[in-house]
Amino acid sequence: MDYRRTHRCNDLRKKDIGSVVTLSGWVHRRRDHGGLIFIDLRDRFGLTQLIFDPEISKEAHEKASKLRAEWVISAQGDVRARGEGLTNPKLETGEIEIEVSNFEILSIAKTPPFSICDDSTETSEDIRLKYRYLDIRRGEISEKLQMRHKAMMVTRTFLDSQGFLEVSTPLLGRSTPEGARDYLVPSRVYPGNFYALPQSPQIFKQLLMVGGLDRYFQIAPCFRDEDLRSDRQPEFTQIDIEISFGYPEDISLLIHDFLKVVFKECLDYTVPDKIATMTYHDCLENYGTDRPDLRFDMPLVRVDEIAKESEFSVFKDQLKVGGCVKALCVKGGADISRKEIDRYTEFVGKFGLRGLGWMKRQEEGLTSSIVKFFSKEQQQALEKKLCAETGDLLLFGAANEALVNQSLDHLRRFIAKERNLINPDCYEFLWVTDFPLFEWDEDERRPQSTHHPFTMPHPDDIELLKTDPMKVRSNAYDIIINGYELGGGSQRIHDYEVQQLVFESLKLDPQEVSQKFGFFTNALQYGTPPHLGIALGFDRLMMLLTKTENIRDVIAFPKTQKASDLMMQCPSGVNPRQLDELEIKASPKEITWI
Amino acid sequence: MDYRRTHRCNDLRKKDIGSVVTLSGWVHRRRDHGGLIFIDLRDRFGLTQLIFDPEISKEAHEKASKLRAEWVISAQGDVRARGEGLTNPKLETGEIEIEVSNFEILSIAKTPPFSICDDSTETSEDIRLKYRYLDIRRGEISEKLQMRHKAMMVTRTFLDSQGFLEVSTPLLGRSTPEGARDYLVPSRVYPGNFYALPQSPQIFKQLLMVGGLDRYFQIAPCFRDEDLRSDRQPEFTQIDIEISFGYPEDISLLIHDFLKVVFKECLDYTVPDKIATMTYHDCLENYGTDRPDLRFDMPLVRVDEIAKESEFSVFKDQLKVGGCVKALCVKGGADISRKEIDRYTEFVGKFGLRGLGWMKRQEEGLTSSIVKFFSKEQQQALEKKLCAETGDLLLFGAANEALVNQSLDHLRRFIAKERNLINPDCYEFLWVTDFPLFEWDEDERRPQSTHHPFTMPHPDDIELLKTDPMKVRSNAYDIIINGYELGGGSQRIHDYEVQQLVFESLKLDPQEVSQKFGFFTNALQYGTPPHLGIALGFDRLMMLLTKTENIRDVIAFPKTQKASDLMMQCPSGVNPRQLDELEIKASPKEITWI
Repeated sequence: MDYRRTHRCNDLRKKDIGSVVTLSGWVHRRRDHGGLIFIDLRDRFGLTQLIFDPEISKEAHEKASKLRAEWVISAQGDVRARGEGLTNPKLETGEIEIEVSNFEILSIAKTPPFSICDDSTETSEDIRLKYRYLDIRRGEISEKLQMRHKAMMVTRTFLDSQGFLEVSTPLLGRSTPEGARDYLVPSRVYPGNFYALPQSPQIFKQLLMVGGLDRYFQIAPCFRDEDLRSDRQPEFTQIDIEISFGYPEDISLLIHDFLKVVFKECLDYTVPDKIATMTYHDCLENYGTDRPDLRFDMPLVRVDEIAKESEFSVFKDQLKVGGCVKALCVKGGADISRKEIDRYTEFVGKFGLRGLGWMKRQEEGLTSSIVKFFSKEQQQALEKKLCAETGDLLLFGAANEALVNQSLDHLRRFIAKERNLINPDCYEFLWVTDFPLFEWDEDERRPQSTHHPFTMPHPDDIELLKTDPMKVRSNAYDIIINGYELGGGSQRIHDYEVQQLVFESLKLDPQEVSQKFGFFTNALQYGTPPHLGIALGFDRLMMLLTKTENIRDVIAFPKTQKASDLMMQCPSGVNPRQLDELEIKASPKEITWI
Repeated sequence: MDYRRTHRCNDLRKKDIGSVVTLSGWVHRRRDHGGLIFIDLRDRFGLTQLIFDPEISKEAHEKASKLRAEWVISAQGDVRARGEGLTNPKLETGEIEIEVSNFEILSIAKTPPFSICDDSTETSEDIRLKYRYLDIRRGEISEKLQMRHKAMMVTRTFLDSQGFLEVSTPLLGRSTPEGARDYLVPSRVYPGNFYALPQSPQIFKQLLMVGGLDRYFQIAPCFRDEDLRSDRQPEFTQIDIEISFGYPEDISLLIHDFLKVVFKECLDYTVPDKIATMTYHDCLENYGTDRPDLRFDMPLVRVDEIAKESEFSVFKDQLKVGGCVKALCVKGGADISRKEIDRYTEFVGKFGLRGLGWMKRQEEGLTSSIVKFFSKEQQQALEKKLCAETGDLLLFGAANEALVNQSLDHLRRFIAKERNLINPDCYEFLWVTDFPLFEWDEDERRPQSTHHPFTMPHPDDIELLKTDPMKVRSNAYDIIINGYELGGGSQRIHDYEVQQLVFESLKLDPQEVSQKFGFFTNALQYGTPPHLGIALGFDRLMMLLTKTENIRDVIAFPKTQKASDLMMQCPSGVNPRQLDELEIKASPKEITWI
């Protein structure tokens, strides 16, 4: 029997009644009922009901009685209307069924470790990862992979229409670990030497601009050997973009247009015509983070001036040693119990904040044990500054600025989630600009690049590079969606001298710089156009589009947080001959697999 | 001055005369002539002539006198018609020029190591690779990269339209070296254990079919750590395709349609409506290879029967020990001198063939020193069999079959090239089928998979697996273009028992099989649909489309035959701390770079 399908399992409708069809797929469910056997046949597209009637084919009916879940079959028969009252409005094919005259078993199946047809949320993620192919068959993951394919197509079609060329850059590159840890690949031809898998195609895309390619993009695999946070993977994908002869606004217009297209095509969601811009400084001041979630309000409000005049020594002491006092106004939060507030205090304690001051705005004014340290005028000033109305709760943090920002940022998001302040169907977009070029690395006692060492200093600040590098702003920009950094980019340095100055500011050993980046700074000297670009986290984009917080949901075969593949059981030991050929020595530690 | 362009360097025409424009790009050539300075400004798109006239702007003229080749500038001015007799019909912008009123130098440039504006074919490829960004700027490579981008877009758009999903599969996988050598990646989390970069996504795409994904594709990066032939790279790209519930003819129809689209879109070349099919056996018999170049005729003709009856002991001795005698008929080759034939003999000698018999067909009949060993009837039989006409040359090889095939295949192509028998604008397509499932590995004294161990045996030959495995044909197919294997694929084994039988035939250690492929054979037991697919060499496709025999021409940043990157100077030594973290030991050998 030819197992090629005339239709897929979600194709047939009322209008097809009377046709003879062939369907192939998996046995989703079997029911025996009144001498008939019913099979829901499944493929990636949907379900169709097959009916085996001994009156039609005794042989088929008998064979069908052996069928079990997940067996693969191909069946021929007539499309007919379901009987009165037997239609299934939940199913797109729910008005018809196939009266099977002939079928073949293509594969039998062992009982799967978890159900394919029922909700398997109780199955541990590890088991679902071990049997990823079965998890994909369940539908949720394959729908996300389908959306991922669509987003890739939309991305490429859009960028192609804008004159970009997709260029694949090498995966076997040079180890230049400025930032995260590289994955290394031993060379066999040159033993003891290594390639590195790229953390990003940064240098290559800049060299393509030096090469005159004008507009480049790539949906690029990237690698970082880091201890994984839950939203990271050792291999991830970025939409990598670079243009010549442009300014940051060209990139923001391009990305805005891109987001419009991809959100419209994938979700039918309309990205607004205007995306707000906020400086790095304002982000930290008002939200305590450089990637604020703007789906809800509740900013951090600095109340240093008022606290300084008060009698509350907890706040005043912090201000004296250079700290700050910031507050949140939780709208309608006066109903929050003392016990709840203790939980908040415990929550911020995890970040190192020693306590949380609070006041409730009742009809009669502010109340709490610390109100007494504030004069009536000070209380009114607080209310005004925080826009507090009757029924609101005010929460205060006092400590050094970084700690207050970090704690209150997390607290702000924690409360928003708990009190359902976030509309899950809404996306809020934000550009963040004017980043500092460097961050101070306390461990290494030297500046580190906030983005990477090829970022152009802000044109107004170039002179500061020599005198006060930590004050230099960069010509960089991040695009934030719902509090997640979708991506970031910058104008690049296209001037050899400026590039050298930046390397000097980073206190990098000139010999090391020359060894690692010599080929690149040399390239800059052969006529480099002004150029700039951006990289968007494609996995993050997919998480936003598919509304999941689990990065593994948007990757076909993901790794665990320990960077292992539970299905293939890798990494693994290898044949000693392989190591001999590479002239490397290693003793494999045994790994225990689930 | 805003360096954003109003036009690119190939945009302006006669109709634009009078407009004020801004162009940015590279100084391609400078000429000083009659008090005026002429600059050919270049970008990836073309050239535009700038003219600096001291009467228009003394300042611009003075600054322009400093310009050197490859400096990057941005220039504003009026488009005007070139003077009488000064138009350049070779240039698309040759009727106009820009009278520059204002310009800015964006980057200066050192003198490049080879000329960008002149033909640099005398520059060694190593130097061009070291300065790849400059080589790209020269134009030829960037045109090929442009075509590559286009072919990728066409491939994706076509497969998307056919219901395929592109799924990215992991690059950090498990080492399962059955075939070529893996590139390994040491794990830091599990020291002494390794990932391997994929030689192909074979297992993943089959698992996606087990997962019900139905139709998968990927333009996939693949890796092989092999000593490179000139047309190989350590990292290469394949168009990877897999479908469920299909038969080989579904794949051949799909690929035929794909080739039609990609050749039409990229080259405006019409692939014929019919692609020939030849069995593996017939290919070897008639062309001595399983990837015959059909752009010219001149088949290998077996003349065993005639040789056996002759008096020529050289041929007869070979036949007695199981060898064969095959011949080529070189049309019009009777003018080939004895000296030339000696060169052919030397050429086949490199493959191990001890000599080359020859006869010329003159007016009076066959002539040569060996003709006397053949009777008149035998001579006539030879002429008939080889379709020899007056003026033709016959060349004979006698040895064991593999050697005759290899030598005469190479000789056939060598002569075709020398005698210009090949139309360079023509493409000849061929499907090859009925491969043997196994090849005998003399070193390991066991069968090896001709394709890979997941290839389905030919349905008629499954019983032979147990009795005479070397006779089993596979359900595999290769697509050949102009004598190059563009790609190959097969029906896969979807039955656990058959898969085990094949592993047994390969004499693989069952424990090793279970360790390496256990997860995969386990997956086969949970309801696997019949599935099949193909992988096309994308770099090879690009070589065919761009008519180059150098694979490095179609890759942005290629590696040398020693798998090194001359530009980045990698592989390289790494920081000992990196190796400590991985708990591996290696002593780097110094590499000398050009």
